[in-house]
Amino acid sequence: MSDYKIMPVIMSGGAGSRLWPASRAAAPKQLLSLVTDKTMVQDTALRVAGGHFTAPVFICNAAHSAVIEAQMDDIGSLPLAIITEPMGRNTAPAAVVAAHYAKGRPEKTLVLLLPADHHVTKADAFRDAVEAAVPAALSGHLVTFGIAPDAPETGYGYIEQGAAIDARSFAVSAFREKPDQDTAKGYLAAGNFSWNAGIFLFSPEALLSEIETFDPVMKAAAIAALEHAEKSGLCLHLDRSHFENCPSESIDYAVMEKTDKAAIVPCDIGWNDIGSFSALHGVTQDDTGMCMSSGTIAVGSSDCLVQTDGPMVSLVGVKNLAVIVKDGAVLVVDLAHSQDVKKVVNQLKADGRTELL
Amino acid sequence: MSDYKIMPVIMSGGAGSRLWPASRAAAPKQLLSLVTDKTMVQDTALRVAGGHFTAPVFICNAAHSAVIEAQMDDIGSLPLAIITEPMGRNTAPAAVVAAHYAKGRPEKTLVLLLPADHHVTKADAFRDAVEAAVPAALSGHLVTFGIAPDAPETGYGYIEQGAAIDARSFAVSAFREKPDQDTAKGYLAAGNFSWNAGIFLFSPEALLSEIETFDPVMKAAAIAALEHAEKSGLCLHLDRSHFENCPSESIDYAVMEKTDKAAIVPCDIGWNDIGSFSALHGVTQDDTGMCMSSGTIAVGSSDCLVQTDGPMVSLVGVKNLAVIVKDGAVLVVDLAHSQDVKKVVNQLKADGRTELL
Repeated sequence: MSDYKIMPVIMSGGAGSRLWPASRAAAPKQLLSLVTDKTMVQDTALRVAGGHFTAPVFICNAAHSAVIEAQMDDIGSLPLAIITEPMGRNTAPAAVVAAHYAKGRPEKTLVLLLPADHHVTKADAFRDAVEAAVPAALSGHLVTFGIAPDAPETGYGYIEQGAAIDARSFAVSAFREKPDQDTAKGYLAAGNFSWNAGIFLFSPEALLSEIETFDPVMKAAAIAALEHAEKSGLCLHLDRSHFENCPSESIDYAVMEKTDKAAIVPCDIGWNDIGSFSALHGVTQDDTGMCMSSGTIAVGSSDCLVQTDGPMVSLVGVKNLAVIVKDGAVLVVDLAHSQDVKKVVNQLKADGRTELL
Repeated sequence: MSDYKIMPVIMSGGAGSRLWPASRAAAPKQLLSLVTDKTMVQDTALRVAGGHFTAPVFICNAAHSAVIEAQMDDIGSLPLAIITEPMGRNTAPAAVVAAHYAKGRPEKTLVLLLPADHHVTKADAFRDAVEAAVPAALSGHLVTFGIAPDAPETGYGYIEQGAAIDARSFAVSAFREKPDQDTAKGYLAAGNFSWNAGIFLFSPEALLSEIETFDPVMKAAAIAALEHAEKSGLCLHLDRSHFENCPSESIDYAVMEKTDKAAIVPCDIGWNDIGSFSALHGVTQDDTGMCMSSGTIAVGSSDCLVQTDGPMVSLVGVKNLAVIVKDGAVLVVDLAHSQDVKKVVNQLKADGRTELL
């Protein structure tokens, strides 16, 4: 058991369009300091340092590799590699690339695949859960981490927990798509359902074996893209002609929902995917329900999130709003409708207003 | 009757702080294009042109005289004079200055004293009302114009109408301060109360005679300030040492509420004082209840006013808001609380953030 490493592979390819205009094409959500004084990739990297962890690997858009390298430098972290994707292909090809990269390491190395843009308040509990998942991963399971739901959320996938594998790991009975409200309430009442946080621990061999079974084309294309990658400093630029042959699929769909090796480690880690301004308000509000850039003036207002990159914001007689001012764009959104921010982004795309994206 | 002129004296000294951040110290409300494609001083000047009207006279802050001159030039209007006040002294000293200036004109000249920052949709009806008031003014009355109230507004003073003077003019029974809601409802039900629009027609002799009675110190100081004014192009810069001796009082308080020569001409002129963003929204909204700068994107939103001087504004899931973006300041205000915008201005003053005023 002691002879292993855990290689964090931080997936940083997201666009964060529901957090527009804070999150932009040039600097999406994970590269921003939204919750703490560090950026989300910095917080994510710091969360998986020490112990059995190797230095992190990033998988990202080429346009962001320099910023990620600089942000890692800021926190004294030297990544093993920054692997850039020539185009987005969802998480399954990234998992294959990560597994193939880990397989080439000198030590026995497990892959911890995790999104760059999640907020975790209990980092110790998270690391404890990862270590607790190691025996199952070493024995060939593809381990997910399940977040105990505290509300019948319809925005997350759910994982139904089955028989125990060991003291902390359980078989997965089923992955459930984002449910409707009634179904979500049922899951919450049943007690053996967790939110799917999109975090995975697996051995390279186990993942590659399963993807060989379920999608050999993807496996071959992703591995070829890595083997033909162009190296430049820390960066490994995946080969376009091979990578574009990868189907764009999530690891959940391509592997986890099909394999009989799926396992789950339930955990309580203070997780939040900061998927909307409502979620961001939830983790940043103070005792008064407000979270506002300094210099903001609020008159007769409550439960608001205000972020500005310069212009001074004033609120009068409003509640439950986010007001976001950044780089020539101003968003005013009722927090109860914060999922609809992506409709603005879609409209901007449709109108060709790329300078605002 | 035919041998007279009407000299419009356009009072442009207001700050318009309830329309901050659209209205700013350097460019207050009356110098902005808030309702039409012309500025409010331009619309006001165009409303009182032709017929018996002379070219207009402006009374304003010295800081705004050049802008007013340029805006008049834009509409082909050459003012008789732009009289600048070294400090604000409310409307009564301005009325005395206007009367003394008119007295020096070669023709028999009545003064039409009117604010620069009111919106009037029925300009013909307004000019008709002014002409209807001429007989009373020529006979020595100080004539006000009463707006038929269509709601129990508590933000305006009311005028109680008495016996007829002629077909269109009536004696004033009383001026009533801004009432509470119940009192306002009573005025509305009584039917003989009008809103006080702050517009006056009088002969110079009548006004000067009354102010001599009620406040001879103000009269002497205001006249001396004009007689010692420094002339510069169109400008007459009132003498500071004399003008500062004028008490700061409204013409209503200093004269109208005390004189027995007050008269009223009720009129229906589509009047709105644009006293708040709610009022501005009321006169600018389209059939959908919205009035938005071009380029604004609204998703699931209604009854909003959006003005921006550049940054692109998006609304998601909000209603009954004004969002105003101008010169480094962003205001988000519930239209039902638009009177409270001045609290933001007061806070900025208290905090010494003068660059935002």
